[in-house]
Amino acid sequence: MELNSWIRQGDNVDITNERKKATFSTEALSEVIYGGADKVRRRKEIAKYVDEHKELHDPVPVPFLSREEKVENASRAVVALQKHIDRCVNKDDEDEKMLMTMLVCNLDGKPTNLHYVMFIPTLETQTDEEQKRWWLQKAKNLEILGTYAQTELGHGTMLRRLETTATFDKASDSFILHSPTVTATKWWPGNLGKCSNYCIVVAQLYIDGKCYGPHTFMVQLRDEKTHLPLPGITVGDIGPKFGINSVDNGFLRFDHVKIPRRHMMMGHAKVDKNGTYCKPIHSKLSYGAMVFVRSLMTTSQATMLAMAATIAIRYSAIRRQGLIDPRGEEVQVLDYKTQQHRLFPQIARALAFWFTGEHVKKLYYKVTRDIASGNANLLPELHALTSGLKAVVTHQTGQGIEQCRMACGGHGYSEASGIPLLYTQAIGGCTYEGENMVMLLQQARFLVRAAGNVRSSKHPRGGQSQVDYLNESGPNRCGIGHTILTNSAYPTQPIIEAFEHVARRLTLNAYDRLQLAKTAGRASHDAWNDSAVDLTKAARAHTRLFIARTFVETVQNIADSGAASVLYDIMKLHLLYELSDMSGHLLEDGFVNSQQMTYIQEAIYQLLAKIRPNAVSIVDSFVFDDRQLKSVLGRRDGHVYENMLEWAKHSSLNKTKVIPAWKKYLGPMMREAKAKL
Amino acid sequence: MELNSWIRQGDNVDITNERKKATFSTEALSEVIYGGADKVRRRKEIAKYVDEHKELHDPVPVPFLSREEKVENASRAVVALQKHIDRCVNKDDEDEKMLMTMLVCNLDGKPTNLHYVMFIPTLETQTDEEQKRWWLQKAKNLEILGTYAQTELGHGTMLRRLETTATFDKASDSFILHSPTVTATKWWPGNLGKCSNYCIVVAQLYIDGKCYGPHTFMVQLRDEKTHLPLPGITVGDIGPKFGINSVDNGFLRFDHVKIPRRHMMMGHAKVDKNGTYCKPIHSKLSYGAMVFVRSLMTTSQATMLAMAATIAIRYSAIRRQGLIDPRGEEVQVLDYKTQQHRLFPQIARALAFWFTGEHVKKLYYKVTRDIASGNANLLPELHALTSGLKAVVTHQTGQGIEQCRMACGGHGYSEASGIPLLYTQAIGGCTYEGENMVMLLQQARFLVRAAGNVRSSKHPRGGQSQVDYLNESGPNRCGIGHTILTNSAYPTQPIIEAFEHVARRLTLNAYDRLQLAKTAGRASHDAWNDSAVDLTKAARAHTRLFIARTFVETVQNIADSGAASVLYDIMKLHLLYELSDMSGHLLEDGFVNSQQMTYIQEAIYQLLAKIRPNAVSIVDSFVFDDRQLKSVLGRRDGHVYENMLEWAKHSSLNKTKVIPAWKKYLGPMMREAKAKL
Repeated sequence: MELNSWIRQGDNVDITNERKKATFSTEALSEVIYGGADKVRRRKEIAKYVDEHKELHDPVPVPFLSREEKVENASRAVVALQKHIDRCVNKDDEDEKMLMTMLVCNLDGKPTNLHYVMFIPTLETQTDEEQKRWWLQKAKNLEILGTYAQTELGHGTMLRRLETTATFDKASDSFILHSPTVTATKWWPGNLGKCSNYCIVVAQLYIDGKCYGPHTFMVQLRDEKTHLPLPGITVGDIGPKFGINSVDNGFLRFDHVKIPRRHMMMGHAKVDKNGTYCKPIHSKLSYGAMVFVRSLMTTSQATMLAMAATIAIRYSAIRRQGLIDPRGEEVQVLDYKTQQHRLFPQIARALAFWFTGEHVKKLYYKVTRDIASGNANLLPELHALTSGLKAVVTHQTGQGIEQCRMACGGHGYSEASGIPLLYTQAIGGCTYEGENMVMLLQQARFLVRAAGNVRSSKHPRGGQSQVDYLNESGPNRCGIGHTILTNSAYPTQPIIEAFEHVARRLTLNAYDRLQLAKTAGRASHDAWNDSAVDLTKAARAHTRLFIARTFVETVQNIADSGAASVLYDIMKLHLLYELSDMSGHLLEDGFVNSQQMTYIQEAIYQLLAKIRPNAVSIVDSFVFDDRQLKSVLGRRDGHVYENMLEWAKHSSLNKTKVIPAWKKYLGPMMREAKAKL
Repeated sequence: MELNSWIRQGDNVDITNERKKATFSTEALSEVIYGGADKVRRRKEIAKYVDEHKELHDPVPVPFLSREEKVENASRAVVALQKHIDRCVNKDDEDEKMLMTMLVCNLDGKPTNLHYVMFIPTLETQTDEEQKRWWLQKAKNLEILGTYAQTELGHGTMLRRLETTATFDKASDSFILHSPTVTATKWWPGNLGKCSNYCIVVAQLYIDGKCYGPHTFMVQLRDEKTHLPLPGITVGDIGPKFGINSVDNGFLRFDHVKIPRRHMMMGHAKVDKNGTYCKPIHSKLSYGAMVFVRSLMTTSQATMLAMAATIAIRYSAIRRQGLIDPRGEEVQVLDYKTQQHRLFPQIARALAFWFTGEHVKKLYYKVTRDIASGNANLLPELHALTSGLKAVVTHQTGQGIEQCRMACGGHGYSEASGIPLLYTQAIGGCTYEGENMVMLLQQARFLVRAAGNVRSSKHPRGGQSQVDYLNESGPNRCGIGHTILTNSAYPTQPIIEAFEHVARRLTLNAYDRLQLAKTAGRASHDAWNDSAVDLTKAARAHTRLFIARTFVETVQNIADSGAASVLYDIMKLHLLYELSDMSGHLLEDGFVNSQQMTYIQEAIYQLLAKIRPNAVSIVDSFVFDDRQLKSVLGRRDGHVYENMLEWAKHSSLNKTKVIPAWKKYLGPMMREAKAKL
């Protein structure tokens, strides 16, 4: 029996031959990735279920649809999903729900995105009991469809500067919502423009002329029967975007819209009918929700990078182009070292991010349990960590997906590859849920505090924190030696020490720079801004260390020897590729010398050659169904070319043999040109 | 009078204040960029002409159009352009024609793209005199619309492996064109799917069963009157792509299509009616055409990066977000050091690439004149150089445009920013006209030959070649000292020597590695593949040196002191940013030490602060009209927010208050949910 379980009769010969080379069991690796044989089996069952129900399939691939058609198709998919999901998946299993959703819907969104991610969670955490009874079950039943409107045309992260007002009107026991300026227009919320009929709105609370800062309010936007916008409400779609075009991101303006007083979310702050304001007790949990969304992003970014890598690796196995030996056949492009050097580190990063996402989710649950028992000590650290991860992972994922796309040559540029949609979706992550520079500086703020403790020889907590290495001195010279080239189980310690060294040095240097500026009389905030570039570098290095360490710890705990061995190679590639990418930082203070950099580089080349025969089998182990990949180039069976032709038939330009543009413009132009003679 | 000539009454106050800070004349800098006051004046006149003729304007911004509407709008624009271009521009001036085209058409293409870039040039260079009389004037008059079909579904750069056949049929004195397999389908040619009625086709020439390799043939695809495809021809659109969606990239299949023998392009090779094949004399000119297209790409990529930088810088001047001083107002995001560090190097690269493009065009004309007088010595070098430039410039441009987009936060992700379209267009350049890895290896092949001469102490040409520095030993230690922080006219020599050092070391190392492998018995082509990653690194370093040197030479020759001074700062930022980006290579052999790296980094920070007050004025100097930028964020007047709202009104989803998707899917879903209770 073959070790790769994806071989089927009738597949492209090149891809079958690749699969036959596997030195490990793809099932075993899948089990490592997804956490057991049951999980892997369920993934296949769900994919099969979706495959067998035509109602769950896109009638036409999404890239061929106009904007309206995209939103319509996403609505169709959501309704179909709703109908089938309980028949197919365990509704308590988030992974199963997520997979089913990915198989039925497209990555670029659907009308229920914000409903599940923001609307329901806000109803669960910010309402009082009576409010929950009013709204929560309705929302869960999908009797109403909601979204969450915070960002305004002129205002992003600075909540204090939002301009939308909610003014208490004692006489009518209500709030008047109003958009006083153009820049106060709510702008960007997903599903706001056309699909949702309810919305949680963030507005400045005013009582008797006094501003109490931003609070949340439940606002009905549209009539439940006719779906027409209610009086005083102007709402619409903000237009096409780089990606996520199946979603109607919207704008929203209020012209003195009256809502009942009790439509203010009163789980924390309250306003009674006399206009008395009751302050909230600070809720650590709302802070935690943000942390949770960001930790989920690590997993979803990992998935998208893994999808792009799967497409590019499979296509590189069947694409033959050019000659290595001038007397030979055209070669599989996967045989080019430049191609391997481009693609294999993307597989490695995808796995590194995946394992990190799993790890951070566990950490989140631990911290949540701690908080429940009154200990919120680890929350600031987790918040910092997820901020840094969000920035580093989205950036590297975006870059990696583009490398995968370009590695597919011309066909990668076609939407048939599926990669353009992956890219535009993934790269949005650099901006939403906190812009990456802001995120890195949040991580940096935590690191600076830790560095302050180091410089003042305080050791606040021992052995529990991700920043403990800042307290250690570490070796003066990197321990990587020549045996990295000969020892196939080379220890990871000297490699991790190199990551630690860089992160420690950059953090302490940035801290010192900051202190020096302050000592020289620079105001604290100006000193911070002056050092901001250095601070982001430190935050990146720290985050890369965390990812590296998590990968190492994961690989240490694998039972199956075949999977452990191939994962060790990928992990080592990841670690060394990262070090090579940070070579400037490693060399700058002489921690690593020239000879050691050469070892690192040579070891990378060795690993590329070693991974080469397993490449297709590694990406097969992600258990991506063709319905999830939505890529002609990444098809499991490798039958790319005939399916490119089939795919192109959907083009709207192919509906008629002669397009209207020719009749209207080009034909007359040519006729006139002839007539002139 | 203000030094910035773009100040107008009624503009956004923040952007006007920025312009008032200019320390140099924007007109003077524009003249440096475009080569004189006349050129700058003409740019403004052409923009004014286009602005005054409504027929030349898009009725609706392109991002709102469906695929068919995009092709139709591009056809409209081409016909309007055709009508007006002679009234407005000097038809012998390529720059004026290019500008007018950019003002009237959209970046994502038009039906005449391939007609002008490939069809007419091929008719000019590969036909005999009689054939020219048949086709050339017709094509120039736009009586026929043509394209060029080379790439096949299964075959790219390897022309020898194309599968389309042109078999000589002596009896009918004709060729039979045929697509024997699916992979033989012509795939990708621009304007092939729906717009063109003629096509130059590359096919394997067969006579009496013998293959003579790929040749070019003129094939009529569609009836001139009805535009219907002719018998035996299957032609259509290949579907949506990452970008360039106003173009109907097409597929084309032949089922034994007969064309007259004289429709083979017979400017070089010939086939007479007896089937006698007459070999071409090798034409250096066709090789030169490729070089020319690639050198134009440097200029067009520079333009796109400059456009993205202009948008991001202007928007960063009017966008206020967050606080530096917690007691102060929200600040212009341009005041964040992280924002400056993200954006200013993009302005610098845009200018570096622009000047390099101008320089290479001149070099091309020189080489063309040399060839005319019988000296083709410099052609291989120019070919290598333009290959390397194509790869480095497209890669850095793509990365830079994305940085500009992300620096615009959420609004950058909207198509209203104009940057998504710039990115998808520019990044295509990494793949078309020669995939970047292939390009770098072509540059590397030239470098390896030069390195071979160095190692064998041959000095083939003295003082004329871009690779002469490989012969020089150069200093052992970098000469950059502390005065780089204090001397505002710091000499560029030690900086350029650092670029030379890296390029020399990487080239000679790659060469040595290659030789070592060969000496060890590795076949030449395998050794090449094994060293390919190192070879691409050498090619990049050499290319970056060339760009740096060209920038330095340009700045040395500027008369206006204000423009010279600001350009010196930008150039210095470019040079130091590049060195910082190559820090690993500089540190590895101890050429640069840690102290020097610190100087470089501090000098970068100093330059960011120095450029800050001039940033808006520098991008103003590119003389981009709003019609060219097509960006709400990048508007000259800074009135962004009200125009975002206006822009969104075009959204097709806003045509009705309630979208069909709600009536068909979401409304019934919510009604059913209610009914269930």
